Amino acid sequence: MSAPASAPLAAERSLSEASPFIATLIRLIRAQDTYGAWEGKPDAALIAPFIVTKEERRAMPLMGDPDPDTIARVELFYNAVALSIERVTGLVASPMMKLHHEGFGRVILTMGKLVVLSKHLRDVHRFGFDSLEKLAAEGEKLVVAAVETINTYPEVAKV
Amino acid sequence: MSAPASAPLAAERSLSEASPFIATLIRLIRAQDTYGAWEGKPDAALIAPFIVTKEERRAMPLMGDPDPDTIARVELFYNAVALSIERVTGLVASPMMKLHHEGFGRVILTMGKLVVLSKHLRDVHRFGFDSLEKLAAEGEKLVVAAVETINTYPEVAKV
Repeated sequence: MSAPASAPLAAERSLSEASPFIATLIRLIRAQDTYGAWEGKPDAALIAPFIVTKEERRAMPLMGDPDPDTIARVELFYNAVALSIERVTGLVASPMMKLHHEGFGRVILTMGKLVVLSKHLRDVHRFGFDSLEKLAAEGEKLVVAAVETINTYPEVAKV
Repeated sequence: MSAPASAPLAAERSLSEASPFIATLIRLIRAQDTYGAWEGKPDAALIAPFIVTKEERRAMPLMGDPDPDTIARVELFYNAVALSIERVTGLVASPMMKLHHEGFGRVILTMGKLVVLSKHLRDVHRFGFDSLEKLAAEGEKLVVAAVETINTYPEVAKV
């Protein structure tokens, strides 16, 4: 059942319009395209590397270091969370990620003196989501949790 | 007037007993001595690389990458701040430092959901302090500011 990730993507194409998180992520990916090399590429093709099925994930070795493209995708994902928080609250969240070269580490988003997200990362080699829906849901979940934290301690977020 | 850093150090030796920050820093340095290579070394010799006079600093080129020993000293300094905060408050502050290889970056200390210290770093090549007193004063200043932040938002530090 390890169908290529691009097949379901075509059908799920409308999700990128339905999910503001995925729209933000796609905008961030396109912002990196300084030379216009991806201009002809559809959104689905740009987001495809974020989709890793369970079977694909199991087949990925954890030996050696995660490749730079994977690390870049982890950064893009959390930058999209940061930007989405800004979209909702109007306040800037600043991301900071530190990864050991072997694929574990920590990412935090801060706003003022408030830590709005803090996650330990491991097995970054296998970073990815089962489906576009899962990607959208996980992104939105982190945004909602961060916004809740900001609403709980607004005075700390604004210092 | 670029006297060798070790000359004033001998005279200032008592500072390491007078300043709890310097005592903490020395403990951290000694903790890295897994093979006992520094057992015979006096504290003054271990802390000497942290002292960089203005003249020495000016002579250090900013071209190229800061060397790993310098970066290790920056980490030790902020880890000593984190440990000193714990000594004062009884709560653990967790450090996170991200440096671009060219010598700029950011260090933050968090406690619960509170950012207790956030500093942008640059010209890390030249990291150092004019004297032991300056080192102690700068360390204690950061600790005092962090403890003030914690006292302002104790409920955020404890979540």
